[in-house]
Amino acid sequence: MTSFAFFQRLSKSFQDHPSHLKLILLCTTVTGGGLLAYSDAASSEVPVTEKKKVVVLGTGWAGTSFLKNLNNPRYEVQVVSPRNYFAFTPLLPSVTCGTVEARSIVEPVRNIAKKKEVDVLFSEAECVKIDAENRKIYCRSNINNNLNGKEEFVVDYDYLIIAVGANVNTFNTPGVVENCHFLKEVEDAQKIRRTVIDCFERANLPNLSEEEKKRILHFAIVGGGPTGVEFAASLHDFVNEDMIRLYPGIKDLVKITLLEAGDHILSMFDKRITAFAEDKFQRDGIDVKTGSMVVKVTDKEISTKELKNGGEIKTIPYGMAVWSTGIGTRPFIKDFMAQIGQASRRALATDEWLRVEGCNNVYALGDCATINQRKVMEDIAAIFKKADKNNSGTLTVKEFQEAMNDICERYPQLELYLKNNQMRNIADLLKEAKGDVKKESIELNIEELKTALSKVDSQMKFLPATAQVASQQGTYLAKCFNRMEECEKNPEGPLRFRGEGRHRFKPFRYKHLGQFAPLGGEQTAAQLPGDWVSIGHSSQWLWYSVYASKQVSWRTRALVVTDWTRRFIFGRDSSRI
Amino acid sequence: MTSFAFFQRLSKSFQDHPSHLKLILLCTTVTGGGLLAYSDAASSEVPVTEKKKVVVLGTGWAGTSFLKNLNNPRYEVQVVSPRNYFAFTPLLPSVTCGTVEARSIVEPVRNIAKKKEVDVLFSEAECVKIDAENRKIYCRSNINNNLNGKEEFVVDYDYLIIAVGANVNTFNTPGVVENCHFLKEVEDAQKIRRTVIDCFERANLPNLSEEEKKRILHFAIVGGGPTGVEFAASLHDFVNEDMIRLYPGIKDLVKITLLEAGDHILSMFDKRITAFAEDKFQRDGIDVKTGSMVVKVTDKEISTKELKNGGEIKTIPYGMAVWSTGIGTRPFIKDFMAQIGQASRRALATDEWLRVEGCNNVYALGDCATINQRKVMEDIAAIFKKADKNNSGTLTVKEFQEAMNDICERYPQLELYLKNNQMRNIADLLKEAKGDVKKESIELNIEELKTALSKVDSQMKFLPATAQVASQQGTYLAKCFNRMEECEKNPEGPLRFRGEGRHRFKPFRYKHLGQFAPLGGEQTAAQLPGDWVSIGHSSQWLWYSVYASKQVSWRTRALVVTDWTRRFIFGRDSSRI
Repeated sequence: MTSFAFFQRLSKSFQDHPSHLKLILLCTTVTGGGLLAYSDAASSEVPVTEKKKVVVLGTGWAGTSFLKNLNNPRYEVQVVSPRNYFAFTPLLPSVTCGTVEARSIVEPVRNIAKKKEVDVLFSEAECVKIDAENRKIYCRSNINNNLNGKEEFVVDYDYLIIAVGANVNTFNTPGVVENCHFLKEVEDAQKIRRTVIDCFERANLPNLSEEEKKRILHFAIVGGGPTGVEFAASLHDFVNEDMIRLYPGIKDLVKITLLEAGDHILSMFDKRITAFAEDKFQRDGIDVKTGSMVVKVTDKEISTKELKNGGEIKTIPYGMAVWSTGIGTRPFIKDFMAQIGQASRRALATDEWLRVEGCNNVYALGDCATINQRKVMEDIAAIFKKADKNNSGTLTVKEFQEAMNDICERYPQLELYLKNNQMRNIADLLKEAKGDVKKESIELNIEELKTALSKVDSQMKFLPATAQVASQQGTYLAKCFNRMEECEKNPEGPLRFRGEGRHRFKPFRYKHLGQFAPLGGEQTAAQLPGDWVSIGHSSQWLWYSVYASKQVSWRTRALVVTDWTRRFIFGRDSSRI
Repeated sequence: MTSFAFFQRLSKSFQDHPSHLKLILLCTTVTGGGLLAYSDAASSEVPVTEKKKVVVLGTGWAGTSFLKNLNNPRYEVQVVSPRNYFAFTPLLPSVTCGTVEARSIVEPVRNIAKKKEVDVLFSEAECVKIDAENRKIYCRSNINNNLNGKEEFVVDYDYLIIAVGANVNTFNTPGVVENCHFLKEVEDAQKIRRTVIDCFERANLPNLSEEEKKRILHFAIVGGGPTGVEFAASLHDFVNEDMIRLYPGIKDLVKITLLEAGDHILSMFDKRITAFAEDKFQRDGIDVKTGSMVVKVTDKEISTKELKNGGEIKTIPYGMAVWSTGIGTRPFIKDFMAQIGQASRRALATDEWLRVEGCNNVYALGDCATINQRKVMEDIAAIFKKADKNNSGTLTVKEFQEAMNDICERYPQLELYLKNNQMRNIADLLKEAKGDVKKESIELNIEELKTALSKVDSQMKFLPATAQVASQQGTYLAKCFNRMEECEKNPEGPLRFRGEGRHRFKPFRYKHLGQFAPLGGEQTAAQLPGDWVSIGHSSQWLWYSVYASKQVSWRTRALVVTDWTRRFIFGRDSSRI
């Protein structure tokens, strides 16, 4: 009894003081760092009336990292999302084959909110309409409930953060929605897992012809991006490490095909990685079909257009198809875009501070948004005018040098251009326009400046729709919000070229930390910053440690690590639940 | 690289030789014993033509324990079940609140079959019809597939083992099927878990009145049996230990009501346990309504008939209802019962050797069957005749004594009657009929024997529909099958009173090993054999160790124990997946 009460107190103290736990787990869990730091600042009481209401739509990477990093108690936050949890999506392909459990990669938003100084309300609902003019959003609970119309409600905001991610884009290919699986949500991964087992059970029914069995055990994956490739690799491991022990005689019947419309899989990676992956898949018996564009899917067959063979239409029987290509816009975002004059775009356009163009106090980040980087050439006159401090009509090197920091900060393409053309400083750039004169004496008029900067905008890059970008945007925006008042008084951003003064904040800059492509069989390719490429077992361990350290909480970290251990000891489970 | 290869080999050897693992886990896992012993007998090659085909329907407790214990390679087994896994059902109430994960309590049937010397085929399908005359069963795959009619197939058998369990019985109460949750399958538990979280999320939507919130957070449980009681207790713990931290301000709105038509909850347990449970629930604020029979359920209200108040009809608003009372017969079993002249019964009637009455080579066990114990009074003439060896027309004490063992084995109610009436031997029994004469000289005629045994049949007991009974029946039947030929030659059962010779096997005897009733807050009531009752923390630890030891494999054992550890450290997860 006494000893029991001790245990109970211990358990309670664990749950109440997660920091004890962290220390303990720090010693026992394999993690690659990434200690979470929660603000422990004394809660400063702010009168409710003064609080600004921030509404966050979505609990994905962008929304959650915003929420985690916001710590100014002058805000009150309301999160609206159809999912009451954050999911660590890079592990979704692992969930499809049971290497990791679905529940191990999710963390309830309320758990995250509970630890904050900031007041956070959560509503499990979908936003269906944004009224930016009146600063209102219209929401509907997506729970199958019996509330007689009360499942719809309106929320007012001072600031709106749109972080709802993207839809799957089927490019209107007929039959995709009806017959293909997707791999964006936790439910998708769980459904794929059940369906894989289903296929094996179906193929083991009596009475089926060999041909029929082969069809059922043909797994087709559409899209050779990181998700599709990782799913193909996981499935191959699952079949060869676990399923063939339990379903004898099926080894020769199973086939995995990866269909990619482009010339190569993993085209966003270094060529060495692409080649290694294609090679490994060939050895593994995974059929990689490049130049193969899916044009139609029925319940038993996929039709492809073979781009390399003059557009020949081929038909492949299949048992299960996973569609892992294309990102689309959610319907209510499309409506909102029409409202604010962005109807022709693919995603919400924001400026470099993540503010949605065409309305006030609305921010968008993650997969539902793209940053509309201003071009140098658009602003060339304003730049010239700001830099030409003595209004002489010409720009000396010294004048240009003084404005340089602000220009580079405002137009990152310039910095990139200098770097890629191996120019050490601004004089090198100007020299091109003026020829080889003595550096200090160079003076340019506006036409000459235009010539000098004419190629700079070609260096502009669109950010990829990845978790890394979304997460960094969330963190950036939260830090801006935390210091809003401070930066209002002492702006720290670059010079306003087309206006007076300085911008409040530095614009968002993405820092690429590298990318993994797990290829199965404990082989992982890693592309790290500086074009450093690593392939093989060592990357696999790096992958394990990075993915463990990037978990949103110590709870999910421990769960993921124990899942890996379980898999290592017992293999993957094949129960159809 | 080298160390990695070592790990990989280690993992492989773990999975190939589970016995290494067992040794390791034995040291690290908290288990209360229960080492699984797999038959390691050298595989004796039996020609396929001689093999007898055993078809097992169902992968619940009965079917799985039969499969695990069958080890005579002269059989080939085909298992047909809509679930390709065995589920440890006593932990289902724990799954509803996330104390244990669904996946931790299931074990794929193919994993169990893989370890056996006996050939085992598994088909994930439902039996839809039994044709006992032609020894065939008709099956249909229940996977949503596109097989153009090939999902139906026929299986021949030499022996058929029916172990399909029972349906939920709604007693035709209107609205139950549409509006209530059940708690029989793993999917049910997962659905309940999601719905509980749904209710909390729904109640946290803006715009709801206090009254509406109270309705949504009212959890009604129908049936005060062990499942209903344990679910109520788990839910109470979940709410008070985890949910109130995440959903502030709802503590006073949540209400749990347990509706029981009888006078007490847990009526199958000792009165002390019932009283303790009712008392604890009252302290916990769980509303126990006895004498309350549910007569109708709508989407928002439950109507009850208050049996104690003269049948007054009351209406209670609710948010989620769980129906955990009553067991019913599966439709294809009903059809089969009509075929073999058992139409009027509730479950398949078998004899004491688990053979279905009215057909050959068909066995039924678990919740779908009841043993039709023969009455002593039905066979009294035959008993008298067999015992009266010298055909004198009277029975001496010596003659009776000689037949006694066989009678007691064949009619266990006699042994129970003697025990309950504190009679040391047969003479005490006969004395009642004859009065106090000298014991050795007692002689009875048939009428006097009838008088002596007239009350014996009142001691007949029906076995409860529990996992324990089903599991023991499966083991018993497998052992009979293992020794079929041996016992054909040397029968070891009791004397055949109505025929010649002896029965091949001893009849099935249930050995009650006790029962647990977890009551929440680490309190468990245990009723052990010999009416030994234990309530409190010590029983909780007994419960933990017994439930851990009773797991079907070392894998599930480790999973369940880690789940308990996770819950202890991190609490339960509230993500809606």
